[in-house]
Amino acid sequence: MNKSLILGIDIGGTNTKFGVVDSTGKILSQGSITTCENAVPNHFIQRLATTLGPIFKQFGKENFEGIGIGAPNGNSYTGTIELPTNLKWKGSIPLVKLIEDQFSLKAMLTNDANAATIGEMIYGDAKRMNDFIVITLGTGVGSGIVVNGELVNGKSGFAGELGHVTMIPNGRQCGCRRLGCLETYASATGVVKTAKEFLLESKEDSELRSISEDQITSKFISEAALNGDALALRVFDFTAQILARALCDFTVFSSPEAIFLFGGLTQSKETLINPTKKYFENNLMNVFKGTVKILPSGLPESDAAILGAAALISSKK
Amino acid sequence: MNKSLILGIDIGGTNTKFGVVDSTGKILSQGSITTCENAVPNHFIQRLATTLGPIFKQFGKENFEGIGIGAPNGNSYTGTIELPTNLKWKGSIPLVKLIEDQFSLKAMLTNDANAATIGEMIYGDAKRMNDFIVITLGTGVGSGIVVNGELVNGKSGFAGELGHVTMIPNGRQCGCRRLGCLETYASATGVVKTAKEFLLESKEDSELRSISEDQITSKFISEAALNGDALALRVFDFTAQILARALCDFTVFSSPEAIFLFGGLTQSKETLINPTKKYFENNLMNVFKGTVKILPSGLPESDAAILGAAALISSKK
Repeated sequence: MNKSLILGIDIGGTNTKFGVVDSTGKILSQGSITTCENAVPNHFIQRLATTLGPIFKQFGKENFEGIGIGAPNGNSYTGTIELPTNLKWKGSIPLVKLIEDQFSLKAMLTNDANAATIGEMIYGDAKRMNDFIVITLGTGVGSGIVVNGELVNGKSGFAGELGHVTMIPNGRQCGCRRLGCLETYASATGVVKTAKEFLLESKEDSELRSISEDQITSKFISEAALNGDALALRVFDFTAQILARALCDFTVFSSPEAIFLFGGLTQSKETLINPTKKYFENNLMNVFKGTVKILPSGLPESDAAILGAAALISSKK
Repeated sequence: MNKSLILGIDIGGTNTKFGVVDSTGKILSQGSITTCENAVPNHFIQRLATTLGPIFKQFGKENFEGIGIGAPNGNSYTGTIELPTNLKWKGSIPLVKLIEDQFSLKAMLTNDANAATIGEMIYGDAKRMNDFIVITLGTGVGSGIVVNGELVNGKSGFAGELGHVTMIPNGRQCGCRRLGCLETYASATGVVKTAKEFLLESKEDSELRSISEDQITSKFISEAALNGDALALRVFDFTAQILARALCDFTVFSSPEAIFLFGGLTQSKETLINPTKKYFENNLMNVFKGTVKILPSGLPESDAAILGAAALISSKK
């Protein structure tokens, strides 16, 4: 069992998940910590070290080949996180260096959504696909794009920031400082914003009025929608319309075989995935009709990103 | 001089241009015919045969290796043109078969904008670029995309239909039957529509009022703008804003090193390219600022598409 393990880390806007992955892609152990308790990345590295200590001890640190990391705005070319809009950290964070210095293991970094995309490509339902897109609908909206069998990084290394296409000109304020980005509508936070707007605009009876406005979460809206709450259903219908329009735009770009929708908002098919499919197929340009599958991840929630991050090391890229 | 020549054909919404290309990529002779006099593709093939007869005689038909064609909605996988929105032809046209039957030469087909993209990649300013996009601003808006050094065709073969991203929800009626596509604003016909709207909305004095409305062309508006006509300048400013927003969306997708703008609308830098550059850089997501060049074609007008079409044959794809 020499150097046969990899630690895969998935840094999200809210939580950071990690897993010990063996050479067959099996996750032997996993856990999580909160991501940003404050604006100091060193504090995060310290908390990560405290949590990982017992795990390295259990599996034997000498058995680890390295640490693969997926993170918002993670740049595989430079090993840094640049201007992450959904984290409290600011500027350019040399994450690979911080992790290597702390753990004395080789580290590699990519965008969090790219990590999920690599996971889906190696271990999930995209195994035999040359052209597909993964959209992660979490705190923000991320994406990973595969064209001609290869991940799209682009000249800058930041390709696949599909959460930041402009859906509504002069629309909602986005964390990226621009207006009307997809992320401001189709993320968990976007759905909560939509619900608050709809609650303000009408006097319609709704389950969502049973708690104070600042306690409303996307999960709560999702449950209300599944209970048949009309306002909550309208929130998802509005979200699906915007998301579907974005997916139509992505299709004219790369004509994918499938678009995988990941993340908390997609856990129930009825609330978001089904209406998105309907609007997508209706609005699609004729030549693409019937050519694109809208699918949930082929892997258990969060596993894709951990496995994809680990694959950065195993594929020795 | 055995089989060393290729005929490259660029089928556009208005005109079809062709050139005799030698093995070094030099265009030895070129000409053009109008594309669609009626809805019957066979009529076009006959007119093409009449025009090409003397040319094949001059260069010796036995010296031609084949015919490469770029056409709107040309599908390289099937050799057909499918539902071309800017041509009078309808349905699925087996262009490769029609050309091969007529000329007894091997024929290959791709999308017209993809042909221009291949030309720019092999002979133009994209020679050393792995990631770039070509946007053709003509009767319609077409595009060709190169990612990781390869043309993007996608699962369907129709990838790169960037004229049909939705820029204004429920906006102008597009030839593709959908609403608000980029093509309805940033094409030559889109610019004319914008001018007519602006003329209706105001009583502002303008050169454009010197001719009857149905005689206004994008060339005329362009000349008025270059003469300092305020209304014509506002037409291009509006067009540049929409085009720049689209280019920002394309950048978050593939992070290109350059976006090349081709076609009649880009002949004068001052009217469209310069304001587009300004709005593009202002509206770009921070991580991409300064990473994308907006460039005119590195080849003389129309040569890129003819050379790219010819390259379909020479590269024996």
